[in-house]
Amino acid sequence: MAMYSEMTKEELEKELESLKAEYKSYKDKDLNLDMSRGKPSREQLDLSMGMLDVLTSDMDLLCEDGTDCRNYGVLSGIQEAKVLLGDMMENHPDNIIIYGNSSLNVMYDTVARAMTHGIMGHTPWCKLDKVKFICPVPGYDRHFAITEYFGIEMIPVQMDENGPDMDEVERLVSSDEAIKGIWCVPKYANPTGTSYSDEVVRRMARLKPAAADFRIFWDNAYGIHHLYEDKQDYVLEILAECKKAGHPDMVYKFASTSKITFPGSGIASLATSLNNLEDINNQLKNQTIGHDKVNQLRHVRFFGDIHGMMEHMKKHAAIIRPKFEAVEEILEKNLGGLGIGEWTNPKGGYFISFNSLDGCAKEIVRLAKKAGVKMTDAGATWPYHKDPHDSNIRIAPTYPPIGDLKLAAELFTLCVKLASAKKLLEEM
Amino acid sequence: MAMYSEMTKEELEKELESLKAEYKSYKDKDLNLDMSRGKPSREQLDLSMGMLDVLTSDMDLLCEDGTDCRNYGVLSGIQEAKVLLGDMMENHPDNIIIYGNSSLNVMYDTVARAMTHGIMGHTPWCKLDKVKFICPVPGYDRHFAITEYFGIEMIPVQMDENGPDMDEVERLVSSDEAIKGIWCVPKYANPTGTSYSDEVVRRMARLKPAAADFRIFWDNAYGIHHLYEDKQDYVLEILAECKKAGHPDMVYKFASTSKITFPGSGIASLATSLNNLEDINNQLKNQTIGHDKVNQLRHVRFFGDIHGMMEHMKKHAAIIRPKFEAVEEILEKNLGGLGIGEWTNPKGGYFISFNSLDGCAKEIVRLAKKAGVKMTDAGATWPYHKDPHDSNIRIAPTYPPIGDLKLAAELFTLCVKLASAKKLLEEM
Repeated sequence: MAMYSEMTKEELEKELESLKAEYKSYKDKDLNLDMSRGKPSREQLDLSMGMLDVLTSDMDLLCEDGTDCRNYGVLSGIQEAKVLLGDMMENHPDNIIIYGNSSLNVMYDTVARAMTHGIMGHTPWCKLDKVKFICPVPGYDRHFAITEYFGIEMIPVQMDENGPDMDEVERLVSSDEAIKGIWCVPKYANPTGTSYSDEVVRRMARLKPAAADFRIFWDNAYGIHHLYEDKQDYVLEILAECKKAGHPDMVYKFASTSKITFPGSGIASLATSLNNLEDINNQLKNQTIGHDKVNQLRHVRFFGDIHGMMEHMKKHAAIIRPKFEAVEEILEKNLGGLGIGEWTNPKGGYFISFNSLDGCAKEIVRLAKKAGVKMTDAGATWPYHKDPHDSNIRIAPTYPPIGDLKLAAELFTLCVKLASAKKLLEEM
Repeated sequence: MAMYSEMTKEELEKELESLKAEYKSYKDKDLNLDMSRGKPSREQLDLSMGMLDVLTSDMDLLCEDGTDCRNYGVLSGIQEAKVLLGDMMENHPDNIIIYGNSSLNVMYDTVARAMTHGIMGHTPWCKLDKVKFICPVPGYDRHFAITEYFGIEMIPVQMDENGPDMDEVERLVSSDEAIKGIWCVPKYANPTGTSYSDEVVRRMARLKPAAADFRIFWDNAYGIHHLYEDKQDYVLEILAECKKAGHPDMVYKFASTSKITFPGSGIASLATSLNNLEDINNQLKNQTIGHDKVNQLRHVRFFGDIHGMMEHMKKHAAIIRPKFEAVEEILEKNLGGLGIGEWTNPKGGYFISFNSLDGCAKEIVRLAKKAGVKMTDAGATWPYHKDPHDSNIRIAPTYPPIGDLKLAAELFTLCVKLASAKKLLEEM
């Protein structure tokens, strides 16, 4: 089929009629499908059922150092969990705090602490007239929700295939003392699947911020979430790069096992410099006596070590890879060559990012919803839910069974064609 | 033996010599005992080992409503956990949020949220010149640590056998708009073991605060932590009392299973009005996708219902009751009639509160520590660690094996006698 933009009005009108008929036949199916959130599927959750059997009443719950995991204490996490998650994050155990079940919560608390108490002796952000964050776009809606909740002004910076536009990041960070942070998903980014290039990471570590308390919020959510054994992205380790660049304290790195074991019942962690850790522990000791050590021990006993975890991730990949490939195949089959959409083909992570013609994303999501397929809201990948192009849509292929997913993807592409044809006709 | 205060100088000097000899013999034993923190003993932890067996890989992890506890979601907790903890807290499940492993963390977050965002539309506390809390004394050091950390001025109000001095609380709360909260441990209080009388609870619910965003922080940490089956304290339900008094939004009530199942691996909860819940959920949705539902389900399956939990608590009581009684017996045997100390004989909770002669507490704790028995720091039960009388010491009998505990209690009473004799001699 020809590019939509090269069709005559008559051709487009005819196409639209045919698309409408097809859309109606989908609506008659009464679908109820969900491609909106990055949730593991039931089959993936089943992979971790062994977690429930590794600790039983006939064994002890002692750490290697003799600590009874059942009782109070051990604020920063048990040593063997630090080792395991340190290996996962490519950081030394001494640089790690193990938290509760949610890295989002750790990020929230990190911002909250900076608001009320400031970072390493600097002015609490709540005492400042203005605090700003750089938000690479498209990005993760829950990051943006945290900064929006705290009244932090968000400045979008465009992502390309290498990561955020570093010229722009450097310009902003070095010139504006109100800029206190940047949200980064450096590997298999949400939603683009992009992994930051070596140059981007190096430039990130070499930023010369106007604000002494500027921090990189490095959400390594998909560090080991590869789709392929033979095609993997590698991202430079940011703590090491910052240290080499003379800015050891400039980064907080976050991760969790949410998409490794059970979402909501995993363990989260933060890796950062010893100075930052001291700063954080001074707060953390007032907030809690310690996180769930039994669950930390459960994770350690289940995986044994990082190799066990990597083998486990291959099983996840075997389940979700066909889903990504199915969606990508349908996108290509139905939209390839039409000039009405572009999408990413990520090598890991949880999302495919789709860019429609400008001004079509909301309409595509509306049409899909009306026909029974829930997508992430258009705009969600931008601060304040405002995508100035109204073009970006996040596709989350992991949760639905593959049959449902294919149906949802077919419908999605139909909605893309419908919205695009209407848009182009309007503009004629 | 006679009252120390009635001894002659010579008698006291002779007594002191004999005490010193006895103290030396303790020091020679090279003890290493701990009566400092309210931690369950190993035997108590063993009671909950069945928790590890109630969820296994061959069963489903579905809620009664079909929710898969393994995946993301359910921000405020699974329904059956709300029912169980609602029964535990004597509140309706609709008034409850289930959190992670630590009620201290919930209290911290509640203060932090008020600092950054205010309560129900009121000015964020961080924007005010001054915020104050009333702190009944002696009280819980970790409460005071939270308010101190946030720069909140703490006003001590004396506890008596019915709870806080309500004349003073009423006077303060109604006259000072900067007073935004009061820390309460209403039942088997930390450290006195006091339970608030009906009158105290009623007056608490009928406070007429100058500040519209004043809140009672009601830490119901020991709600079902009875020592005796036949002698139990009952405390009026504070949400109901506040509602009846026309102040439904005036209280946050906290609890957890930390001293029921595994400390650090339990579940925490907050009960409050629907208005407060709406306010809290508006924040919570930015902080996390949800807490550990698998652990919530584990608790529900382990206990079945509140009756199961109460039966479980009887087993705890059977272990710790003899420890309380042993300490009380030794206190009576060694200090009774000497006029150098008073202590509480609680019917529940985790602590015995001891009051020495003024100016002796620090010395007693120092002497005990030097001879190998760790006590909670003197002063810890007061805001800023400043006990103006230097007299209150918190005794935590639960953790050590009973043999160790008796030895520690014997040594403690010896240190009380030593410090008191020295003090009285100094004053002669």
